[in-house]
Amino acid sequence: MASPVVTTRILRRLLSSGVTARAERLLERIHPADLGPLLSDLTPDEIRAVIDMLFRQRRAATTLRELPPELLPQVFDAVTDERLAQVLSRLEIDDMLELAEAIPEERHDDVMALLPEEQRLELRKAELYEPDTAGRVMTTSFVALDEKMTAEEAIDSIRAVGETSDSILYLYVVDEARQLRGVVPIRRLVAAPPDRSIREIMIDSPISVTIAADQEEVANLVARYDLLAVPVTSEDGEMLGVITIDDIIDVITEEATEDMYHLAGLSEEDRVFTPARQSIRKRLPWMLVNLCTAFAAASVVGFFERTLEQVVALAIFLPVVAGMGGNGGVQTLTVITRAIALGEIEFSSGIRAMLKEMAVGLTIGAVVGMLAAGLAYVWQGNPWLGGVLFVSMVITMAFAGLLGASVPLALKALKQDPALGSGVIVTSGADMVGFLAFLGIATLLLDNLV
Amino acid sequence: MASPVVTTRILRRLLSSGVTARAERLLERIHPADLGPLLSDLTPDEIRAVIDMLFRQRRAATTLRELPPELLPQVFDAVTDERLAQVLSRLEIDDMLELAEAIPEERHDDVMALLPEEQRLELRKAELYEPDTAGRVMTTSFVALDEKMTAEEAIDSIRAVGETSDSILYLYVVDEARQLRGVVPIRRLVAAPPDRSIREIMIDSPISVTIAADQEEVANLVARYDLLAVPVTSEDGEMLGVITIDDIIDVITEEATEDMYHLAGLSEEDRVFTPARQSIRKRLPWMLVNLCTAFAAASVVGFFERTLEQVVALAIFLPVVAGMGGNGGVQTLTVITRAIALGEIEFSSGIRAMLKEMAVGLTIGAVVGMLAAGLAYVWQGNPWLGGVLFVSMVITMAFAGLLGASVPLALKALKQDPALGSGVIVTSGADMVGFLAFLGIATLLLDNLV
Repeated sequence: MASPVVTTRILRRLLSSGVTARAERLLERIHPADLGPLLSDLTPDEIRAVIDMLFRQRRAATTLRELPPELLPQVFDAVTDERLAQVLSRLEIDDMLELAEAIPEERHDDVMALLPEEQRLELRKAELYEPDTAGRVMTTSFVALDEKMTAEEAIDSIRAVGETSDSILYLYVVDEARQLRGVVPIRRLVAAPPDRSIREIMIDSPISVTIAADQEEVANLVARYDLLAVPVTSEDGEMLGVITIDDIIDVITEEATEDMYHLAGLSEEDRVFTPARQSIRKRLPWMLVNLCTAFAAASVVGFFERTLEQVVALAIFLPVVAGMGGNGGVQTLTVITRAIALGEIEFSSGIRAMLKEMAVGLTIGAVVGMLAAGLAYVWQGNPWLGGVLFVSMVITMAFAGLLGASVPLALKALKQDPALGSGVIVTSGADMVGFLAFLGIATLLLDNLV
Repeated sequence: MASPVVTTRILRRLLSSGVTARAERLLERIHPADLGPLLSDLTPDEIRAVIDMLFRQRRAATTLRELPPELLPQVFDAVTDERLAQVLSRLEIDDMLELAEAIPEERHDDVMALLPEEQRLELRKAELYEPDTAGRVMTTSFVALDEKMTAEEAIDSIRAVGETSDSILYLYVVDEARQLRGVVPIRRLVAAPPDRSIREIMIDSPISVTIAADQEEVANLVARYDLLAVPVTSEDGEMLGVITIDDIIDVITEEATEDMYHLAGLSEEDRVFTPARQSIRKRLPWMLVNLCTAFAAASVVGFFERTLEQVVALAIFLPVVAGMGGNGGVQTLTVITRAIALGEIEFSSGIRAMLKEMAVGLTIGAVVGMLAAGLAYVWQGNPWLGGVLFVSMVITMAFAGLLGASVPLALKALKQDPALGSGVIVTSGADMVGFLAFLGIATLLLDNLV
């Protein structure tokens, strides 16, 4: 594969010198999935030219489907409503849905009006499924078999359709009422004797999910049982569609991004090449929340201003207590959030996890606190100062462990995202308890510190 | 599916009351992938009993393959060397390798000696591949076709082998020198006319990876091109094995865990139910590093002790400056680390990302700093204090943005893990610059602050 950087440079030169035919040939050789990084380096005019070529090559639909969301606004600007409708009509329903939702609101209805009636209705139906549910990522095209067929008849029926999409990894056996009866992995169909009946080959009561199932849980199911696709049924068992492994991979990647982002207080749309203006708008609200908690922590310090006036050296160790507590809390938070995401922990085992994390925090606090106390004693020459630092670090670290475990578990129990907002709660909680413990104990022992 | 909590309770009761037959029937109905959470709730004696049953049911190999690594030591304790060798010999090479590496060192050689010669040699060979490379996750069993066969002959040859593993999603066309010539998706084979030749059906020059390729890059390739498996070749094109999508999903999940863990300074083996003693041992070194950086930041504060003595109120705002800078830096770090992991950023576009993040930090610093300045003025009644807070927050946030972007990019350029250690560098860097800016400017303007 050629380096994308080189390709971009060549493409720009060909475009600017008007050698369209050669640019088109170059473009033909680029995989749709590789066009994203390339487009992000082009000017709006160049993007327009490339999109034109893609339409001439009838590759616009497959390409737009693969583009990272932050590039779509620019691409939409370069495309007429007619062409957009044409692109949408060529996509499978899950991709159609995703692209349709990215169309600017003022153009949405116009583009919809240009879609063929049947697809417009299907899209309307799909739009009714809740975000992040199975209905949003399933495709409605799959091969349905009758259990009375033989293996050979089944293979012939697939041949009659010709090579279709990825969803043909499993074949689904349904009855007259479209109830899902079984599933036949295509490899099993091929390996079976030609006259064997589908009923004998099929896997009975296959793993399936309902249309309202949470995408993350579907992904965990697929990962756990090494599936290649999952059938999606209505609440009463009617076969509606299939979620394929490529969509599952997208879900897994997105959920991991979401967890990392939420722990840091970021919004998912804030990607590396999102325009700065947009990133600022997305991050500001979270930073304002942070400012409030920072001032809350500061007010704890302010409460002990008299103590600080008498022993200024205490100010030096404030960042140590808070920093260590924050780090310990974030470690616990990361372990627990990840365990929740991977389905490794239930609320019942959560108590055990909380106790463990508290014990870990307590022990680490004792070891690190001892060292910190020694350092503080050597530096400031007062053993009492070391003692205060030691005790407050043990308290802060144990509390940070407890908080880091209990906040995401509580959010999960309340059916909220365990990662969202827990970072700020844990770090500011650790800060406040740290300041309170350190300055509080120092105030009690003030006579020994002055 | 029954709830795992209920199942555990029933299983324990059956085991303790000695109703082995019923316990065995219950166990038979549990999917290997569901046994992990169940075993983690049992006592060592109960685990021993369950493992015995699994051996009787000839399901020990498939089960052990699925167990989370933190459970393996306990399970190994309950199994003789002979049985362990028996389990290993039934696994595909990638699973065998993973399990073999978890065997305690003192038993490793004894177990190896009990393996059949051929498998021992294969395992030895696999052990030579670098960690996290393609060689470590590939399986060596795949179906190789000759390009002169017809579609029907190919299907017959698969029937002759019978249903095998997952690797049969694609069939690989190799020549006499075992060079990879092409690939035939099984769905394309089934859909093709029976007399069509494999040469006509196959995809030429398929995407493949070499044995030393990085697992994360292989995963990005599979995700980007929606592959179901990827062939692995030697440096000179000889077909060696296949990486299937279920292993890719494991790689994606593990890489995401690794990134989240490394950002928080955690080791991958430190999971939610890892014994506390082990978690403490894993986290302590990182906490000691943190203690050093915390004391480094504290020494910056210590350098300004005279200033603090004169204006104790400054101590109150230290956590605000440091906390906001740290949060901003971690946000940038998360965006950049994730972009690197997903292959969305190259070093060339890295400069652009750095400039963007600095601009974002600067702007957010200005907005939030203005607010902080206002609050500080209202609280402490000194406009100069607000001014110092504003300027130092702008400086700190811009610096944190620059640091959050440049540290992971620099680590990546040095072929290091971009997430590992970058968290501590960014937060402690932001702390130090924050303290230096805030207390430095305060010292310059001291006359106006007193």
